[in-house]
Amino acid sequence: MSQLLDASAKGVYAISATPFTDAGDIDWPSVDSLVEFYMGCGVQGLTILGMMGEAQKLSGDEAAELTLHFLRRVNGRVPVIVGVSNPGTANLVKLSKTAMDAGACGIMVAPLTGLKTEAQIVSYFGEVVAALGENIPVVYQDYPQSTQADISAQSFLKIVDAHPTVVMFKHEDCPGLKKLTQIRKGCDGGARRYISILVGNGGLYVPQELARGADGVMTGFAFPETLVSVCALFAAGRSDEAEDLFDAYLPLVRHEQQPGFGLAVRKEVLRRRGAIRSAAVRSPGPKLDETDITELDRLLARLETRLSEGVRRRAIA
Amino acid sequence: MSQLLDASAKGVYAISATPFTDAGDIDWPSVDSLVEFYMGCGVQGLTILGMMGEAQKLSGDEAAELTLHFLRRVNGRVPVIVGVSNPGTANLVKLSKTAMDAGACGIMVAPLTGLKTEAQIVSYFGEVVAALGENIPVVYQDYPQSTQADISAQSFLKIVDAHPTVVMFKHEDCPGLKKLTQIRKGCDGGARRYISILVGNGGLYVPQELARGADGVMTGFAFPETLVSVCALFAAGRSDEAEDLFDAYLPLVRHEQQPGFGLAVRKEVLRRRGAIRSAAVRSPGPKLDETDITELDRLLARLETRLSEGVRRRAIA
Amino acid sequence: MSQLLDASAKGVYAISATPFTDAGDIDWPSVDSLVEFYMGCGVQGLTILGMMGEAQKLSGDEAAELTLHFLRRVNGRVPVIVGVSNPGTANLVKLSKTAMDAGACGIMVAPLTGLKTEAQIVSYFGEVVAALGENIPVVYQDYPQSTQADISAQSFLKIVDAHPTVVMFKHEDCPGLKKLTQIRKGCDGGARRYISILVGNGGLYVPQELARGADGVMTGFAFPETLVSVCALFAAGRSDEAEDLFDAYLPLVRHEQQPGFGLAVRKEVLRRRGAIRSAAVRSPGPKLDETDITELDRLLARLETRLSEGVRRRAIA
Amino acid sequence: MSQLLDASAKGVYAISATPFTDAGDIDWPSVDSLVEFYMGCGVQGLTILGMMGEAQKLSGDEAAELTLHFLRRVNGRVPVIVGVSNPGTANLVKLSKTAMDAGACGIMVAPLTGLKTEAQIVSYFGEVVAALGENIPVVYQDYPQSTQADISAQSFLKIVDAHPTVVMFKHEDCPGLKKLTQIRKGCDGGARRYISILVGNGGLYVPQELARGADGVMTGFAFPETLVSVCALFAAGRSDEAEDLFDAYLPLVRHEQQPGFGLAVRKEVLRRRGAIRSAAVRSPGPKLDETDITELDRLLARLETRLSEGVRRRAIA
Repeated sequence: MSQLLDASAKGVYAISATPFTDAGDIDWPSVDSLVEFYMGCGVQGLTILGMMGEAQKLSGDEAAELTLHFLRRVNGRVPVIVGVSNPGTANLVKLSKTAMDAGACGIMVAPLTGLKTEAQIVSYFGEVVAALGENIPVVYQDYPQSTQADISAQSFLKIVDAHPTVVMFKHEDCPGLKKLTQIRKGCDGGARRYISILVGNGGLYVPQELARGADGVMTGFAFPETLVSVCALFAAGRSDEAEDLFDAYLPLVRHEQQPGFGLAVRKEVLRRRGAIRSAAVRSPGPKLDETDITELDRLLARLETRLSEGVRRRAIA
Repeated sequence: MSQLLDASAKGVYAISATPFTDAGDIDWPSVDSLVEFYMGCGVQGLTILGMMGEAQKLSGDEAAELTLHFLRRVNGRVPVIVGVSNPGTANLVKLSKTAMDAGACGIMVAPLTGLKTEAQIVSYFGEVVAALGENIPVVYQDYPQSTQADISAQSFLKIVDAHPTVVMFKHEDCPGLKKLTQIRKGCDGGARRYISILVGNGGLYVPQELARGADGVMTGFAFPETLVSVCALFAAGRSDEAEDLFDAYLPLVRHEQQPGFGLAVRKEVLRRRGAIRSAAVRSPGPKLDETDITELDRLLARLETRLSEGVRRRAIA
Repeated sequence: MSQLLDASAKGVYAISATPFTDAGDIDWPSVDSLVEFYMGCGVQGLTILGMMGEAQKLSGDEAAELTLHFLRRVNGRVPVIVGVSNPGTANLVKLSKTAMDAGACGIMVAPLTGLKTEAQIVSYFGEVVAALGENIPVVYQDYPQSTQADISAQSFLKIVDAHPTVVMFKHEDCPGLKKLTQIRKGCDGGARRYISILVGNGGLYVPQELARGADGVMTGFAFPETLVSVCALFAAGRSDEAEDLFDAYLPLVRHEQQPGFGLAVRKEVLRRRGAIRSAAVRSPGPKLDETDITELDRLLARLETRLSEGVRRRAIA
Repeated sequence: MSQLLDASAKGVYAISATPFTDAGDIDWPSVDSLVEFYMGCGVQGLTILGMMGEAQKLSGDEAAELTLHFLRRVNGRVPVIVGVSNPGTANLVKLSKTAMDAGACGIMVAPLTGLKTEAQIVSYFGEVVAALGENIPVVYQDYPQSTQADISAQSFLKIVDAHPTVVMFKHEDCPGLKKLTQIRKGCDGGARRYISILVGNGGLYVPQELARGADGVMTGFAFPETLVSVCALFAAGRSDEAEDLFDAYLPLVRHEQQPGFGLAVRKEVLRRRGAIRSAAVRSPGPKLDETDITELDRLLARLETRLSEGVRRRAIA
């Protein structure tokens, strides 16, 4: 039985890809191998059915089945958060209950595209939390680049004040460093209860975000073990080593972080690393052409070179 | 067995609401009564699972079940188009096949939110049509206010040229009168094959659009019989009477056409007319408060007055 | 010397077009005739350099010169509000001072495109009002369809509380009827000071908005005298007559209200009515083609017919 | 007298900041020192009045005066491109003529915000080029993240075919690597005339873009001499050294590239490097707080360390 997510969550929650066969079906054996890959990376948790997991291209039945399969395979080794954002609240609640009953530690919700004011977002979360009930931990996913639903730190703090089940802020606004600092200061465990802040944006600003008080990273970068080391070094007070290691991977972080297109890159890297059998993105979705492949080859070769030059050894020694 | 949709389609295709109980479940008896309401209005066809049908808030299973139920109830009396837009092409195709197997005359697809260039839209429709196969008639839904995927007449004509199964243009861009004229001229049955053009936007510009060559109307206005009369009068060359009748309803057309909020108005009018039992919009969705109800009361009372003053009698005499 | 705008403003503030010659220069004689046209319509005030005034296509020098010219010609007969929205606060302040020194009654500011949260909008208005000083009355223009800067009633009330010089809310959100009611109740002269609310959206919802407590209309509809009568009838408690009159013009209101394109229609109507010499819209801008002209001819002819049938006479008797 | 811009342009065209005093006035002595700074960096050209130059916050008179001042100071040492994008074509043309008369080599135009289809963009450029005449070289600025006006490679090629004065594509779409390749292949000097492609996005993908055939970089990164070296090394066939050098600066490139906020970082770095006297961004604009300053201090210190470790020496040896 999994424990429930709470505000003490930290480290790396990898956003899992959803493996498909070349024909576009869910590739169940690759789900298993992908879980083992993440476990081997030492991640602190997993997030499934995020945008990077192509959740919106799954049918409701597939989403439920995938949730159950993931949870069975993980089998309590790490906590699993399930993305449940949906235009209909009933669908959102149904998947949440399926996930929690099967052992998920919490669910992640982004404000709906089409919410235009902060007042509307606050009201929407009120409705969603009321529909979920008092026992399901909620992650607020702040990703306005995708949802167009922007929220200020002040309004998010209203949600924190109103809803004890909101225990984590998935930070993904960009530029968003100031907002991260405002929310960290607002939820520091003193004047207001502490909440966990995990950062996204493909990991592009991880060292800066950890320095500003983030508790960890929730992203799909295809080298999760590196992020695990970066977080561990940072937590151990070795922030320069942490950032040296991060910077060695930064060219690839940047390359994967290209909105939309980056997902195809990411799945190809996961494939090369043996985590999944096919890099296929479900239709409609980006595909790598020959130029893209050559470009990626070069970036990966350069990474190897840099690591062999000792950056990595120094960093994690 | 229903016939397939083709470019000769004309008149009024009512976009059906989806009736829910106050608790938010599909209200199956109201689906039946709503079908009978539309049949009584003399509409030429029905469109189900459009945006006005809250399709995005249904689960995949509900969408399929609702499609089957609607088709059984209509039972071939009029052709039924099924909205199948979906972020995932596999889901889109699956619902399309379910619908066509059950007797739908065709399916309606809008370009995906997130497609940014016309080239991307043209390419997307290429993929979708290829996945649907050569036997499923397709309606292109042009609703950029909702999808942010804008297309010019020129690019739409490329789609017409490439894909014989695209037989109808659901016109909903605004301002869009010039585009309608361009597409009408481009698909006039001479230089290029004819396609059917039905207009939306809540019907706000119907007389102007019919004058520019539209073949009819596809919208959810709660007085479909009026639109049927308007189209019939117009087709009979009695365009002034057609517009007189339309103008009598214009205050209400305008009121229902408020984006988002108008759906709650529309369902309330349908409820008052006995078509459905509850005006509930599924969560999250707009609700009418007391002021809204008073406002609607007044608009409906004024409509009654105007009709009793003879506008209607004159118009449809 | 003009008086300053205050919260008692009511009635019709016509948003003035900016007349250009066919070559695209400001047509100064038409500015004069247009002012006289508006005066002849009995409007309660004028607003110049709004979006409908193509302000963003004027140079800074032209804007200043036009402001001075308008104010000289009006010569205190009615109060004049000047639109000063600008990406740079220094430019905004400069034009405001030019306008106020020349006798404007106040200035109108919309939140900048690119402001993403309500907190940012509130903060922006704080900066702007601080830069303007304590003596310049400010109209908040709420037009998110154009600015993408949405604000809730609650956040607008914060601005009212913080800044005594904000005396008017130009209401143009759509759907926005609920927000209008919220702001009216929030600024009713009881718990909080009264502010004036004038409505826009081309006038599409005027009767509903007056019933909800709007103080008048600020829009560019080419028959301002009708809106004057509508407001007067409504103020006199003859709301049914007011709405009858309005509804007679509704087909044209709707036609002019088409975003972007409507401006070309409006200027053509103003030209036909003798208010300006050319209907030219400055480049880049919409142009009427032959079909558009025929369509407008028909709408105007139908309006004549309807008025001659007595609607008008009854309404304003 | 400057030469006109043509398709042979390559290397680094620095987008110049506009220096302001703390009070927000143009800081003319800093304009001079900034020009000398860029000259000292060995840039191949300058671009003034870009978005990074806060052009939209200048008055028309300031823009003209700044253009003349810059051109006088540069005095023909490198070609100068002037950003002239403006909601009004007349204003655009006026500034273009002022600039060209004073010795600019060409002007840069982005499609207007509000253009929704590629057909509209192509048409807009037709109007603009017609208004500019046949003697003013034009740079197409493709920056849809800011303009929301997306264009495909195919449509841009139509503009190239129609307008010989369009000689450069300022590439700034993101993700945009595939588009860059398509345009490079489309304008390779074979089937179609060659055009120059300079890339933006703060320089975030420079090595990948040079490998795909970009001719250089046009961005405001505060270490332009590094980009000059990167381009030179790449042109000399030493692409690994080029990328090593680039990667050493990548953490800072990424930090400056944060939309909006990055400008404040950039001006602060320019100030520290002695290029300008104040880092002030004109209101409304971002400001660095203490945390931001500490963060920047750390990034610059880390850069120093890395350079001292020999990356730079190796790279440009």
